[in-house]
Amino acid sequence: MTFGFLVSTPRRHLRSTNLSRVLPRLFARRYLHSESLEDCSVATMSTVNKTAHAFDKTRLDALLNRRFFYAPAFEIYGGVAGLYDYGPPGSSLQANIIAEWRRHFIIEESMLEVDTTIITPSPVFETSGHVARFADWMVKDTVNGEVLRADHLVKNVLEARLEGDREARGVAAAPAAPAPADKKKKKQAKTTAVKLEDAVVAEYESILAQLDNYSGPELGGLMKTHAITNPSSGNPVGEPQQFNLMFASSIGPTGQHPGFLRPETAQGHFLNFARLLEFNNGRVPFASAQVGRAFRNEISPRAGLLRVREFTMAEIEHYVDPLDKKHVRFADVADLELVLLDKFVQAAGQTTTKRMTVGQAVKEGVIANETLGYFVARIYLFLVRIGINKTRLRFRQHMANEMAHYASDCWDAEIQNSIGGWTECVGCADRAAYDLSVHAAKTKQPLVVRQALKEPLIEERAVAEFDKKVLGKTFKGDAGVVSAAVEALDEAGMMKLKGELEQGPATITADRKEFTLQSGMLTIERKTFKTNVREFTPNVIEPSFGIGRILYCLLEHSFWSREQDVERGVLSLPAVVAPTKVLIVPLSARAEFDPLVQEVSLRFRKAGVHARVDDSNTSIGKRYARNDELGTPFGVTLDFASVQNRTMTLRERDTMDQRIGSIEDVIATVTELVNGSIDWAEACQRLPAYDGVQAVE
Amino acid sequence: MTFGFLVSTPRRHLRSTNLSRVLPRLFARRYLHSESLEDCSVATMSTVNKTAHAFDKTRLDALLNRRFFYAPAFEIYGGVAGLYDYGPPGSSLQANIIAEWRRHFIIEESMLEVDTTIITPSPVFETSGHVARFADWMVKDTVNGEVLRADHLVKNVLEARLEGDREARGVAAAPAAPAPADKKKKKQAKTTAVKLEDAVVAEYESILAQLDNYSGPELGGLMKTHAITNPSSGNPVGEPQQFNLMFASSIGPTGQHPGFLRPETAQGHFLNFARLLEFNNGRVPFASAQVGRAFRNEISPRAGLLRVREFTMAEIEHYVDPLDKKHVRFADVADLELVLLDKFVQAAGQTTTKRMTVGQAVKEGVIANETLGYFVARIYLFLVRIGINKTRLRFRQHMANEMAHYASDCWDAEIQNSIGGWTECVGCADRAAYDLSVHAAKTKQPLVVRQALKEPLIEERAVAEFDKKVLGKTFKGDAGVVSAAVEALDEAGMMKLKGELEQGPATITADRKEFTLQSGMLTIERKTFKTNVREFTPNVIEPSFGIGRILYCLLEHSFWSREQDVERGVLSLPAVVAPTKVLIVPLSARAEFDPLVQEVSLRFRKAGVHARVDDSNTSIGKRYARNDELGTPFGVTLDFASVQNRTMTLRERDTMDQRIGSIEDVIATVTELVNGSIDWAEACQRLPAYDGVQAVE
Repeated sequence: MTFGFLVSTPRRHLRSTNLSRVLPRLFARRYLHSESLEDCSVATMSTVNKTAHAFDKTRLDALLNRRFFYAPAFEIYGGVAGLYDYGPPGSSLQANIIAEWRRHFIIEESMLEVDTTIITPSPVFETSGHVARFADWMVKDTVNGEVLRADHLVKNVLEARLEGDREARGVAAAPAAPAPADKKKKKQAKTTAVKLEDAVVAEYESILAQLDNYSGPELGGLMKTHAITNPSSGNPVGEPQQFNLMFASSIGPTGQHPGFLRPETAQGHFLNFARLLEFNNGRVPFASAQVGRAFRNEISPRAGLLRVREFTMAEIEHYVDPLDKKHVRFADVADLELVLLDKFVQAAGQTTTKRMTVGQAVKEGVIANETLGYFVARIYLFLVRIGINKTRLRFRQHMANEMAHYASDCWDAEIQNSIGGWTECVGCADRAAYDLSVHAAKTKQPLVVRQALKEPLIEERAVAEFDKKVLGKTFKGDAGVVSAAVEALDEAGMMKLKGELEQGPATITADRKEFTLQSGMLTIERKTFKTNVREFTPNVIEPSFGIGRILYCLLEHSFWSREQDVERGVLSLPAVVAPTKVLIVPLSARAEFDPLVQEVSLRFRKAGVHARVDDSNTSIGKRYARNDELGTPFGVTLDFASVQNRTMTLRERDTMDQRIGSIEDVIATVTELVNGSIDWAEACQRLPAYDGVQAVE
Repeated sequence: MTFGFLVSTPRRHLRSTNLSRVLPRLFARRYLHSESLEDCSVATMSTVNKTAHAFDKTRLDALLNRRFFYAPAFEIYGGVAGLYDYGPPGSSLQANIIAEWRRHFIIEESMLEVDTTIITPSPVFETSGHVARFADWMVKDTVNGEVLRADHLVKNVLEARLEGDREARGVAAAPAAPAPADKKKKKQAKTTAVKLEDAVVAEYESILAQLDNYSGPELGGLMKTHAITNPSSGNPVGEPQQFNLMFASSIGPTGQHPGFLRPETAQGHFLNFARLLEFNNGRVPFASAQVGRAFRNEISPRAGLLRVREFTMAEIEHYVDPLDKKHVRFADVADLELVLLDKFVQAAGQTTTKRMTVGQAVKEGVIANETLGYFVARIYLFLVRIGINKTRLRFRQHMANEMAHYASDCWDAEIQNSIGGWTECVGCADRAAYDLSVHAAKTKQPLVVRQALKEPLIEERAVAEFDKKVLGKTFKGDAGVVSAAVEALDEAGMMKLKGELEQGPATITADRKEFTLQSGMLTIERKTFKTNVREFTPNVIEPSFGIGRILYCLLEHSFWSREQDVERGVLSLPAVVAPTKVLIVPLSARAEFDPLVQEVSLRFRKAGVHARVDDSNTSIGKRYARNDELGTPFGVTLDFASVQNRTMTLRERDTMDQRIGSIEDVIATVTELVNGSIDWAEACQRLPAYDGVQAVE
């Protein structure tokens, strides 16, 4: 289960939780890394000073659309809300994020990768609880039939009224509730400057603060009480109805086998648990991992890549002994400092985060156990490595009432962005034994670990021994159910029966009938049992990643414009995820550069560095600028000097700094830069600065 | 469109074509590479002599199941036909095949990767023709309701009768039609030794030869004429009905937007054509590429990974000028020799293949054009590189009546295997301008290339000039439709009208009415037009890969058993796709080996070589044998000598040959072996043979 979706409570726990619940917080207008380090003294590229201009979402959107990072799917057919296609740079960025995820988690932790089907027969989701409860409340405009999400409607209308009240009072927008960045939303619930009674303001604020606690009928009640109508039409809306978010289909030609598209990849892991355990030689802990598509039929998605109907997830299910949630590599991360927003702070109505090492957090019980803490830390390291700004990343703990009863702890990695404020992009939950238990109960398959005990377990318990002859004579065909009823008694029940029989006849209910037992029929004794095998259902720690959300936040965090020209957008993607690592720029497309261009291309390919040639008929500066938009971190220029002296200049995207060296040296340096074994400062020590005129920008 | 599915004709052109149509041909019982090269003289690992035992599908299936390469999905819920989950080695093998596909096609050819949605609104598939025609004919058992594919039923029953006839006549099974390897099929249509009339035999054979030419009602007719019933029940079956193979669903909460799961990834490419063309600076040729899931609701899938309801495809759409289908890199592949089965040979009822270079084939018109030939060659190189046995790979051309009217040529890469005989695993078609044209016509979006002409195009054609005043006076509100009707005339029509007007009044039909034109209303003149831009709809060459089918065939081609022990299965997967490249085997799990194990692991990781440690408590020989089953090509052993002298032995999977060297040398050698820059023969020259006792097998 993913993105905080927990079976026991519906909407509140969907992956979209934060988007709807946590109001976007105001944040500094200068989003990018605040450290300012000049030229070659920088430690890493991601700390380069990318101040220049304030973040401009319109410009970013224009760039992403123009360069086809992604675009609405079926655009030429008018589009479908919540479905997006990735173009070449977006696909490549996504593939690189996934490749790094595989390296960071699957390879480095020796996880067992699986690839399971999307189509899932209905019984699986009946067991998991999705058929009954994976739903949102929706309302219909009674006149034009438009469908709205009930909680979003209440939120949008009340927020607009509060905003109107503030305008009427001449108060600036409260920091906690800025107008949503999403234009359509804005259009939906228009703000009019109308002053409200103080009591009404207080009531609205109270409703908004606990929006996730209302059931569907309660939301319907609020709409009546507060005369909430569809803001885009002014029409009344009907009673809230539940809408299951799974896409339904039918398997095979008879129509008798309903199925669903998975809303998460997790069930595919759980159903294969027995095979995976065997693959791991019967031992826990181990983890399965899967990257794949999942589907949620959102009611009316309007938040770009943050809320979509089809998305790529990466999920880990780590199976662990419930009695031992230590992690063998915990020491590796114990000193890592994280920004945490714990449940107690939130329950007190606050959002004050604290910095804490993972070691401290586990020691003080803020994070429930070592394994959970280990994964929270690993998630942090992954996100920062691919380029998420660590000052805009925090871990928020689920509050007690947010979690299902069986879960013991859950932390979301929230990444700040201009659409959703602090948005859940990764969930990390300790789901206890729930998933394996329900499937085992339903299928009668033992989804358990059997562990040989070093010391045999010795246990004393009461057991009944029957005189079968007497029993058969007395109860005839009922003898079996009577003895089964006795054997089904727990320890206390057994001892009570023993006591009763010592006094005289005792009665027992079996198969809805009462039977009278006599002392001659059975004896009850406490006996000692010795077992060499312990059997248990492992607990599951589940880190679950929404790749599209991470990708979008990464694009926001990476985007800025050159100081000298706001039109010149740059995506400062780290080399590890950048779609192309090196741009090869010959001075012109003239044939004399061809052999060198081919040589350099081949050398980069052999070194495993993804390079592209741009020999288009435009200035070198323009070609670089075009590739700054695509996030290409390095560029090499081949000119007449290259032909003559076999030298090549190297240009770094963020600083526009240029270096020069022999073709061999530059390629070796770039290879190390891309592999991350050196940083730009070290590269500068190897290659002297270049101050020629060839690539004036 | 993929796997030979062409819109104009339904079942016959589905990807499953071959599986149903081409009878499994008898092939040598020794499936594996026949070249026998001893020890270190081998040129490449794939030519190592892997004779030993005859191919045993039961053993392979047992291995794949036991080691969890893949397994029926939802097994603990009773399973669902045609849905499979990949376990750790299968996932990894699949991921490596895809990674190599990306490298071989996308990176090396600078293709534009896209990642489009699976959920597709109905109008898209209405335009493409899938809603109307992507269907199979099925029949229902009239008593128990079992659903069967109509063509499969006829085929199975008639083949069983012919087989029974041969038995009765005491004739051995004909080479062209051995009993199917699929046990269920065998069970379905039981063979009984009943002799048939000679005329009946001839009739059955004629029906089988042209099975794909029958429509649904014709298949129904055959069932009646030849008293074909459900072989598993003996019950009669009903009339054949069409069953659309797309999984249907509904997008959004209103139920008003029907959608389907894509049965191929191709439409996602075509719909983004305009954006992709812009990304490529408006120039053709270029190609888009996509790897992703597709779905087909097969009626009753029973052929393992060869016929599934959900599968991973890799598709390329190469857009090319219809007037210039040359390929700039054709010379690179022109000398490659392929095994071809052309359409003329097949039309003559034969299956004789011929060896031919790609250059020859294109020159002689066997393959329609250079671009198609180039991709056929690149497909061959890819398949052989990942380990497909080239002696069991051929390219079969579609026959004229197999292709849609708009397609100009189509070749399937067929791989021989024990389930489906020669099975289509890759399709490669020249689809002309069909796909872009239908979407452009439907959406009114210009899916065209505009090409600046070096020489302006000069064209003379007749045009009409109207005296609008007179026209308006005469026809009033109809003036517009009249002038439009004139302008819509073709050259001949226009000149005819000009002639008529010179004689007197002329009539023209517009909007279902007749109008009389006079010479004063318009003049028609031939004029010269000059254009600097040529506009055209590019043609599409489409290589389309079924990854699961390739993966299964690869497993069959790689499997063999050791001569000394049939129980010891080996998967001779090439290093490039092997799930794990190197097994690190310490003599025991004793702590004294730990530092070395960690050092060696780290060094392999730094070199980018995926290694795994097996320190389980069993003999080195057993550990190697276990990893032979997983296809791990290399193993290194750390023992007391390693601790003392920093030496390590290296073991090659197929030959079990062992070498020894310093830890550094062995790691360097393995890294080059895995990267493919040296082969085992070269490795043997660097590292002396080891004849110690440590890893007796």
